[in-house]
Amino acid sequence: MSEKTLKELAEYVGGEIYNGSGEIKISSVSTLSKAVAGQISFLTNDKYAGYLNDTKASAVIVGEKIDCPVPLLIAKDPYYAMTQIMILLHGFRPHEKIGISPQAKISPDAAVGDGCDIHPFAVICSGAKIGRQCKIYPGVYIGRDVHIGDDCVLYPNVVIHDKCILGNRVVINSSTTVGEDGFGYATHKGIHHKIPQIGTVIIEDDVEIGSNCGIQRGAIDDTIIGKGTKMGDLCDIGHGTKIGPYCLIIGQAAFAGSATIGHHCVIAGQVGIIGHCKIGNCVQIGAQAGVAGDVPDNAKIAGSPAIEANKAKRAYLLIEHLPAIRQTLRHITRQFKKLDMPVKDDHDDDNGGK
Amino acid sequence: MSEKTLKELAEYVGGEIYNGSGEIKISSVSTLSKAVAGQISFLTNDKYAGYLNDTKASAVIVGEKIDCPVPLLIAKDPYYAMTQIMILLHGFRPHEKIGISPQAKISPDAAVGDGCDIHPFAVICSGAKIGRQCKIYPGVYIGRDVHIGDDCVLYPNVVIHDKCILGNRVVINSSTTVGEDGFGYATHKGIHHKIPQIGTVIIEDDVEIGSNCGIQRGAIDDTIIGKGTKMGDLCDIGHGTKIGPYCLIIGQAAFAGSATIGHHCVIAGQVGIIGHCKIGNCVQIGAQAGVAGDVPDNAKIAGSPAIEANKAKRAYLLIEHLPAIRQTLRHITRQFKKLDMPVKDDHDDDNGGK
Amino acid sequence: MSEKTLKELAEYVGGEIYNGSGEIKISSVSTLSKAVAGQISFLTNDKYAGYLNDTKASAVIVGEKIDCPVPLLIAKDPYYAMTQIMILLHGFRPHEKIGISPQAKISPDAAVGDGCDIHPFAVICSGAKIGRQCKIYPGVYIGRDVHIGDDCVLYPNVVIHDKCILGNRVVINSSTTVGEDGFGYATHKGIHHKIPQIGTVIIEDDVEIGSNCGIQRGAIDDTIIGKGTKMGDLCDIGHGTKIGPYCLIIGQAAFAGSATIGHHCVIAGQVGIIGHCKIGNCVQIGAQAGVAGDVPDNAKIAGSPAIEANKAKRAYLLIEHLPAIRQTLRHITRQFKKLDMPVKDDHDDDNGGK
Repeated sequence: MSEKTLKELAEYVGGEIYNGSGEIKISSVSTLSKAVAGQISFLTNDKYAGYLNDTKASAVIVGEKIDCPVPLLIAKDPYYAMTQIMILLHGFRPHEKIGISPQAKISPDAAVGDGCDIHPFAVICSGAKIGRQCKIYPGVYIGRDVHIGDDCVLYPNVVIHDKCILGNRVVINSSTTVGEDGFGYATHKGIHHKIPQIGTVIIEDDVEIGSNCGIQRGAIDDTIIGKGTKMGDLCDIGHGTKIGPYCLIIGQAAFAGSATIGHHCVIAGQVGIIGHCKIGNCVQIGAQAGVAGDVPDNAKIAGSPAIEANKAKRAYLLIEHLPAIRQTLRHITRQFKKLDMPVKDDHDDDNGGK
Repeated sequence: MSEKTLKELAEYVGGEIYNGSGEIKISSVSTLSKAVAGQISFLTNDKYAGYLNDTKASAVIVGEKIDCPVPLLIAKDPYYAMTQIMILLHGFRPHEKIGISPQAKISPDAAVGDGCDIHPFAVICSGAKIGRQCKIYPGVYIGRDVHIGDDCVLYPNVVIHDKCILGNRVVINSSTTVGEDGFGYATHKGIHHKIPQIGTVIIEDDVEIGSNCGIQRGAIDDTIIGKGTKMGDLCDIGHGTKIGPYCLIIGQAAFAGSATIGHHCVIAGQVGIIGHCKIGNCVQIGAQAGVAGDVPDNAKIAGSPAIEANKAKRAYLLIEHLPAIRQTLRHITRQFKKLDMPVKDDHDDDNGGK
Repeated sequence: MSEKTLKELAEYVGGEIYNGSGEIKISSVSTLSKAVAGQISFLTNDKYAGYLNDTKASAVIVGEKIDCPVPLLIAKDPYYAMTQIMILLHGFRPHEKIGISPQAKISPDAAVGDGCDIHPFAVICSGAKIGRQCKIYPGVYIGRDVHIGDDCVLYPNVVIHDKCILGNRVVINSSTTVGEDGFGYATHKGIHHKIPQIGTVIIEDDVEIGSNCGIQRGAIDDTIIGKGTKMGDLCDIGHGTKIGPYCLIIGQAAFAGSATIGHHCVIAGQVGIIGHCKIGNCVQIGAQAGVAGDVPDNAKIAGSPAIEANKAKRAYLLIEHLPAIRQTLRHITRQFKKLDMPVKDDHDDDNGGK
């Protein structure tokens, strides 16, 4: 961990110092409530503004001037500035240089680029090509004819099935599987007959995928995860899903298959997206939403079934009031009877359902 | 990849040719929009009918005569015909014949049948019995006294715990775990005491299970996955669940435990099913449904809470209109006041909830 | 499996015998419907009371005297008594004593305590410290500087990333990942920049975690799973989540991150909890609930969005009646027109949503 002055940090992120000396020494980053002297903190979520007056941080990254006792580093995009400073001071997880372990099982027909670290108990099958400087952790399985670019990281126990293609700087977290067969069966006379899944998975440059995800290969067309897209843990990507570049897919989101998702979409946790639909660009989908059809560019939707997000916020909260709404309706119906004007009661339509 | 004539394919699936020559050569299958000459395509989802006129496919499999410029292969069950032709032309993923790897760890007390491929870094514990022609991929763990039938495929990093039983032709995709302890605890004086999970998991013939699923062993009675049932990725099967034969369980579906599910059910993605309930035969449950009780044979349900599916379709879509419904109700209430007939307002019952 | 008399069992759990002889021999536990002579069963869920008269069990554990033909073991906490008896008669899964496998890859800089079993193809990196009597199954990866206490069990293919800390008697089921990077990105000019995740994961004593879970390391503050908490399969624990002691977290529950959960909470299956919120102590959250904010101590909530559980039970069930409610409202509106008192129709506000 290196030490920098506040002035150095401000210059590094193109920000300015307010209410403090440029000579303050900063060696690490922490939260407002836990920071101690020598640490820089940040305020990027208003929820934590209350901690600002009591923080022990030596400086705080903010988006605009605030009246407070602590030295500020004002940056246009304070979350990005915090990120840059975290990278500068802390860096990313280092990867041990171990070279090619003799305990890895590498097919003589596989090609492994310069500078790769292949850990014990990794398996690389025939025809696989791995670029330069990749880190292949223990227990990783790389199937036949898989192509992997440069600077990729495959964490322990990741599985990449035959013929899948990964670009450069792809990171796949532990126990995720890529290219297993899609869920494709033709039901004939009560028997489910497996359909060969002849597509692959293409993961473009700079994608990071969380742990314990399942990314099915395409039935016919390939499954695609677009450049720069980031995915959380335990996501379920059905066969033939095409996710555009620079999306954020949060944990446990699920795509049934053959859906097309545009660029820069944000798909929150536990969302479910039906098959064969088209989600536009820059779409935002709220947590647990159920998406059963196409969604236009720039839409913000939420709820299950998903509707426009602002409307959803009001509408779904009103479910709570359904008992009162129904009671009021019955009052009114009775009043009408007094007026000798009968109203069809909402009970009439009730026939039990499930 | 072999090449066939359209006539050969028609005979193979018991279909007939319309609008084209039996001598057309077909070497592979593709989608309507991507097919090129020499490929056959299919129309089994009306959503894609628009592509029919412009397809470059040499022929298209359909369910009935359609007016279009491309040669047709008409089959009674076109999706099944497509499947048969895909199997004929493309086949399934081949498995390399590697025999028993010396880098696998196989207990001397385990029995491995003829023709098995046991890959490096697979572990087979004492008392395990594995049938003939099984493919046990790298990183697979087969616990003590596990019994596996013939022609099974266990993809990389699958875990089968002690005493579980797999039938013939069972396929388990990567990183799925079978037979881990069920979630069973007795809470006594604030401490959760683990209950021994003495049941096992029985997976019957011809089951395929997706990747990254967790299938818990039974607390007392066994967990059972019935013959011919197919399961997607990331499903969560609680202890003692009994799923009947020929069900389709889509990705991320969850069963709390001790539920009994009949045969030929279709349980869509992200469905949650409460414990100790009974789901009948041929039940269809829509995506994200929450099932909190028994369901009769042949029911189609959807929604959370789940209700009859057609009713659900209408009812859940009306959530969107709750703000308008409430506003109308308030108008009416005010009008009644003008009539000097007071109505209990739906606000009266509102006390904040959570 | 040992054999005990009913009297010995009653004394062991501090219960009393009713309607039977203390000399009855019991060798195992089963369910009411499957038990045979020589087995003890239990009635702890009223749903199964109907099986009491026909059970073949030699005795049944109950919470209070019941009129029935079978000998009873009456215990104050019958579920706990059943647990104690199951442990006594069946015990937990035994772990083979194999010592340190020469096929495991253990860094010379790692410290492994006395009595550990380290299975083939496990990897223990430099700086890792493992306590006494731990069982480290095949395919487990223990990263650099991980600290693990005594008597822990890590089932096959578990991954513990660098610097994470496990207490004593922690059990982690197969394929679960602990300490992968949190989902943290700063989006700047359309690019998602990875934020170093410098926190770790701390798993306290007596925690059990299911299979195929993902437990992210903290972005800055650590992710914490409190003492005695038990978690099901496929849970998704976002970075910086702090779960208190003695919680029960059921399968597929998800925490977006930086949420704080109190002690003795019960969080049911498929629940989603937003980031940066505070869930109190002894909170109970129903299956599939969506929690979008703070929850006070002792609250019981359900539904998505989550509201007070009793209210939720009534309110969410009324969604089914929305078509009828709307129809009634239209009747009333028409009636008002007859009265020459126009009402704003609920259609007016409908502008399509998604």
